[in-house]
Amino acid sequence: MAAVQGQGLKALLFDVFGTCVDWRTSVAREAAALGLPGERVADAWRARYQPQLETVRRGEREWVVLDVLHREALDDVLAGLGLDLPRAERDALNLAWHRLDPWPDTVAGLARLKRRYVIAPCSNGHIAQSVALARHAGLPWDAILGAEIARAYKPDPSVYLESVAALGLEPGEAMMVAAHTGDLRAAAGCGLRTAFVRRPREYGPGQRDDLRGGPGIDVEAGDLEALAQALGA
Amino acid sequence: MAAVQGQGLKALLFDVFGTCVDWRTSVAREAAALGLPGERVADAWRARYQPQLETVRRGEREWVVLDVLHREALDDVLAGLGLDLPRAERDALNLAWHRLDPWPDTVAGLARLKRRYVIAPCSNGHIAQSVALARHAGLPWDAILGAEIARAYKPDPSVYLESVAALGLEPGEAMMVAAHTGDLRAAAGCGLRTAFVRRPREYGPGQRDDLRGGPGIDVEAGDLEALAQALGA
Repeated sequence: MAAVQGQGLKALLFDVFGTCVDWRTSVAREAAALGLPGERVADAWRARYQPQLETVRRGEREWVVLDVLHREALDDVLAGLGLDLPRAERDALNLAWHRLDPWPDTVAGLARLKRRYVIAPCSNGHIAQSVALARHAGLPWDAILGAEIARAYKPDPSVYLESVAALGLEPGEAMMVAAHTGDLRAAAGCGLRTAFVRRPREYGPGQRDDLRGGPGIDVEAGDLEALAQALGA
Repeated sequence: MAAVQGQGLKALLFDVFGTCVDWRTSVAREAAALGLPGERVADAWRARYQPQLETVRRGEREWVVLDVLHREALDDVLAGLGLDLPRAERDALNLAWHRLDPWPDTVAGLARLKRRYVIAPCSNGHIAQSVALARHAGLPWDAILGAEIARAYKPDPSVYLESVAALGLEPGEAMMVAAHTGDLRAAAGCGLRTAFVRRPREYGPGQRDDLRGGPGIDVEAGDLEALAQALGA
């Protein structure tokens, strides 16, 4: 199985938020340290994410780095929850998205995958955020690809295709790794291979979506070390 | 001295060919393995480099990745030296630029600098070449910046400025590190700080240029470990 799945495969592109790092626990902890209800803030903040990206994807606003979207959303989240926080603390809390902790298997799994494959994020995070996060969490990327090099947001096809092209590869030589089936469907539509990694607690104990990869996924794994095993790394 | 030089400094951007890796010895060795006069090929190949880049900088041709320019130059070099080589071997030799060996101090120096600063190449190499080279030579970059993200070639200011912007920094928070004073003058003109690293054998035993950094350089060091020392890393 490993030989077939890894055949001709040269690079792995990773979703990061949720797939490699536990954004909910990390953001909740930073919010709680400022006296806020941590998990409610984290969940409400993340709930604004896709609608915000959609305004860029629909062309209603120009592409901006995620820090800008996160900062705008934070004001809305706090207003919606009836919470107050001084501006300087809002600015500091916004950078919680640069300091997310990895899942327990992430660093060892990436290190093992890197021995055989080129590894890079294909995230909606921008380069500065991705670099800060990689340094915080110990993610040993070969390069930072994704939204900023395409100036677009996933699942816009250009994000996958420009990331693959930057590595000098054909889409079929790369595999998108994500805990979200929508991300993988879009990548598959661009010709990339796909790996679903189960992160059943990404959204907390009551998570109901993205518990299984389902049909059309090339590989499904319980974590990144299991993915390395499946890909012969 | 270290405290002053490192104050407010957040990232180091590196020239790669000659500064981090010994292109001449590496290319000569691969050419010699194919029965060619290694050093003559390496020197003639590199001599075509700046004139080629100049055609892009002057707008006479669109930006293309360095692999394309290297491959065109190789045909010219072999013709100029009256040498023949089958096409498949030319294609393989062209990738010698993806397999250059580091100078003896490079890997340890970069690892030490990375503990305190974000480190990234700001090279005329493209992303795929930079990734392959980093994996070959063990260069522990935080991100791959430089020519491809700007679609321009140094010393075009956009290459320095877009690399700094990708890190979310102001030019004065970054330092360009190079063994070439022309590269550093251009970076300084964009507001970056500058470090000259002496590589007196880059062009072989008869090297006459770039032996000293000269006036206007912020730091001069004998190698990357000495640079780490000078910058308090």
